[in-house]
Amino acid sequence: MSKTYTIIRIAQAVNGQAQGDASRTITGISSVEAAGPEQITWVAQDALLKKLSGCRAGAVLIRPQWAPEVPVGITAILVERPSHAIITVLGMFDESAAVAPGIHPTAVIDATAVLGANVSVGPHAVIGPQAFIGDNTVLHAGVFIGQATCVGVNCVLWPNVVVRERCLIGSRVIIHPNATIGADGFGYELIDGRHVKIPQIGNVVIEDDVEIGANTCIDRAKFASTRIGQGTKIDNQVQIAHNVEIGQGAILAGQVAVGGSVKIGPYCVLAGRAGVADHAVLGSQVVVASCSCVSGVIPDKAQLAGIYAFDVQDWRRSQIAVRRLPKLLEQVRELARRVAELESAKNDTNRG
Amino acid sequence: MSKTYTIIRIAQAVNGQAQGDASRTITGISSVEAAGPEQITWVAQDALLKKLSGCRAGAVLIRPQWAPEVPVGITAILVERPSHAIITVLGMFDESAAVAPGIHPTAVIDATAVLGANVSVGPHAVIGPQAFIGDNTVLHAGVFIGQATCVGVNCVLWPNVVVRERCLIGSRVIIHPNATIGADGFGYELIDGRHVKIPQIGNVVIEDDVEIGANTCIDRAKFASTRIGQGTKIDNQVQIAHNVEIGQGAILAGQVAVGGSVKIGPYCVLAGRAGVADHAVLGSQVVVASCSCVSGVIPDKAQLAGIYAFDVQDWRRSQIAVRRLPKLLEQVRELARRVAELESAKNDTNRG
Amino acid sequence: MSKTYTIIRIAQAVNGQAQGDASRTITGISSVEAAGPEQITWVAQDALLKKLSGCRAGAVLIRPQWAPEVPVGITAILVERPSHAIITVLGMFDESAAVAPGIHPTAVIDATAVLGANVSVGPHAVIGPQAFIGDNTVLHAGVFIGQATCVGVNCVLWPNVVVRERCLIGSRVIIHPNATIGADGFGYELIDGRHVKIPQIGNVVIEDDVEIGANTCIDRAKFASTRIGQGTKIDNQVQIAHNVEIGQGAILAGQVAVGGSVKIGPYCVLAGRAGVADHAVLGSQVVVASCSCVSGVIPDKAQLAGIYAFDVQDWRRSQIAVRRLPKLLEQVRELARRVAELESAKNDTNRG
Repeated sequence: MSKTYTIIRIAQAVNGQAQGDASRTITGISSVEAAGPEQITWVAQDALLKKLSGCRAGAVLIRPQWAPEVPVGITAILVERPSHAIITVLGMFDESAAVAPGIHPTAVIDATAVLGANVSVGPHAVIGPQAFIGDNTVLHAGVFIGQATCVGVNCVLWPNVVVRERCLIGSRVIIHPNATIGADGFGYELIDGRHVKIPQIGNVVIEDDVEIGANTCIDRAKFASTRIGQGTKIDNQVQIAHNVEIGQGAILAGQVAVGGSVKIGPYCVLAGRAGVADHAVLGSQVVVASCSCVSGVIPDKAQLAGIYAFDVQDWRRSQIAVRRLPKLLEQVRELARRVAELESAKNDTNRG
Repeated sequence: MSKTYTIIRIAQAVNGQAQGDASRTITGISSVEAAGPEQITWVAQDALLKKLSGCRAGAVLIRPQWAPEVPVGITAILVERPSHAIITVLGMFDESAAVAPGIHPTAVIDATAVLGANVSVGPHAVIGPQAFIGDNTVLHAGVFIGQATCVGVNCVLWPNVVVRERCLIGSRVIIHPNATIGADGFGYELIDGRHVKIPQIGNVVIEDDVEIGANTCIDRAKFASTRIGQGTKIDNQVQIAHNVEIGQGAILAGQVAVGGSVKIGPYCVLAGRAGVADHAVLGSQVVVASCSCVSGVIPDKAQLAGIYAFDVQDWRRSQIAVRRLPKLLEQVRELARRVAELESAKNDTNRG
Repeated sequence: MSKTYTIIRIAQAVNGQAQGDASRTITGISSVEAAGPEQITWVAQDALLKKLSGCRAGAVLIRPQWAPEVPVGITAILVERPSHAIITVLGMFDESAAVAPGIHPTAVIDATAVLGANVSVGPHAVIGPQAFIGDNTVLHAGVFIGQATCVGVNCVLWPNVVVRERCLIGSRVIIHPNATIGADGFGYELIDGRHVKIPQIGNVVIEDDVEIGANTCIDRAKFASTRIGQGTKIDNQVQIAHNVEIGQGAILAGQVAVGGSVKIGPYCVLAGRAGVADHAVLGSQVVVASCSCVSGVIPDKAQLAGIYAFDVQDWRRSQIAVRRLPKLLEQVRELARRVAELESAKNDTNRG
């Protein structure tokens, strides 16, 4: 059953001031274009403000200075930062499944594993010897926790996540379904025509407040640790190779790939499908555009795009130039013809 | 044990006319090049017709007008569309494991879940509270169905597929192993240097007749629904972000990535590893070439290629031009030298 | 508890000669820069030799001719090939979880499956009818082995790996978590506006000594087999489509994609996120650079880079040229202006 709130209740929750009929009932959230009279929406950008005149929402989160733009019949909730307030409202309407507390009888938990208070373990989850699971952490159905792996407090591991042995997962970490943490790094030595496997004896360390997307892979180190810094957020199908070190607060969007031994500084942003070549070193707050690949040493705050990426402004100009290339080839041929003609005329003159 | 059929039996199944010895036995299917005397093959393109003279197959599906090309000793089965007929024959030789009917005793099914008639549930599968599973649907081993998720009739979910809570899966949907449906969309708001998670309270709606590849991810919406249209086919390792809407009959090949809130019209084709940037809008029947990335608004039937993709014909020409670039740079330098020489000569003349 | 060895013990294991105090105790492995006095490191390249003067390790594996460079206080172990010796030492310090022997009582094994001697089956693993598992093979928790699939001896399948029906896995094969082997190939025929599924009735054959990364997908053939050759190593999130044939000893790095019916010769190397288009044929020892896509027929030992990849040397030059494109466009415009001026001057002269 859906949740419902009065507008006055929502206004209180976001520390906002209601303007209009605050007794109306709200049953959900939608966009400025799609919201109906029982839904709330929000205006955080100028672009949306223009669409407000046709809006049919019951309520709108909006900055005080934009209040005059709210059509009659829509109750405004005035807040300084609508983009922050909507997070609170989304949370109020969140119907995520409450997890059944306690340990499901089909879970297999080694006798030497230690579980904190209020841990939930779903059906068919497996927890290995000497593993540790912190207070309030939820391991959903089919999760695998390897030997001597530690998971902190208030974590959520969604179904079928695999974390292999001796890894360290911090607190408040979220890992989405089918992600793989701690598989062997990819390393071989070619000896007599045979790829001999290099043992990968390190582990993975995930610091606090990290989120890891579905089907993402983070490999264990050859030795020492592959490390993901505090508060870093990683999307789905991201590949992070062995011995990578990522600082705090980085953002890695879907299908990003990070090669072996790469170092990524704090608050870097790798857009969708960005790639980082083995051994590259990115400073802090570097931004790599989507579908781009970087290598080498990248200074702080650089913004890069392209394959063998270079400065994003130069890259945009070069991309435009690329489209003109077929025409340019023709122009150069034509110029060459005309220069030859001039030269020939000059020679005639000289001879003449 | 392999299945065997007489050629006459196969000809009947495909509504074809046998020409030659139709009493022979066929035990399998192979290509024109590799087929042996107990195998059937098919010729659907001119290119294969040329290879027919060396063919050793027992039977061949072929158009009536090409019958004269069939070598002596091979029985022809004449059909208007060999590429359609071979689908029927492949089905005849399909040895896919028959699924053990009924509910495996190790499956964990919440008491409030509702299962239709003739549902199969494999070992260690988990079905959450208030979930609904339609008639004849097969959930293989280790499948997870979250709270209040509905799956239609005649679906097949292969092992270890995860579908989180409150999603809607239509009828005749096939989902391959380790796919993840309904994980949280990737959304954060940077507040005081901290990436605050935006609750993702929507769901995923998969319409009828959709097929979803192994290890593919389809994220739940921030609010409302991420939606995959009727009859759309999605390959392995595809990433579909939150609030995407895909029309009917689209084709998404392996490793495609679709950014947040993208709209894709009916019968679009995204070739292998094509990417679509956040908020892009593709009309109907748009084709994006492999390894290409598109953004913005794309009109119906556009055919695009390249990073920051543009028209595929222009792109091909520009790619050829790119290869000539090093030489072009030299030519321009040389031209510049010659022009300077001419100018200097002219100045001499003027002065002279 | 960590393992410890004396230096003399390590020197014996690698057939090396200790130079310095060989009675010291070593507790682990680290890099030249990070190693402390209880750790061993190795020098395999000139670049590392330069860093050796500041090294604080207890021991170093090094070539005899470089022995004079080892600082006082570090015990040298002289070996001809430090990069080979370190593999042995990594193995000595490997603390991989010993797998509990035997069949876990929660595993579901069909009565018609056959298991060799000393097989380990983890919790909640599922083995289908007529499946065969060879001696000493380890199937971790949640692994699914389909009907009539055979797995050879001494294999390790990590948690939640899915291998569907009728596939053949050789001996000493390693498959990392959440990998999917034998899902349906991606094939449809458009009939009356409907994508009709083409049955995928073949299988997957993995030869001996292959390693397959986490969340990698290898699709079953339309008919016959998708085949991975002996000793080939495949990284995480690689997509291999139906009917691909890969020779022995190939290397496929993370996120590589291989299209349908591709043939790849022995000892090819596909770097990270390389792509191979449907029906391409690569000779032996072909190298494809990262983020590059190849198609068509590629001769032995070709080295390719770029989208619509061409020779890697040409490609590097063209990439450099691309960066100069915006400037080149200006130069050509300027040249055109100057040529026009010269022509006009010539015409004036002619008229004058």
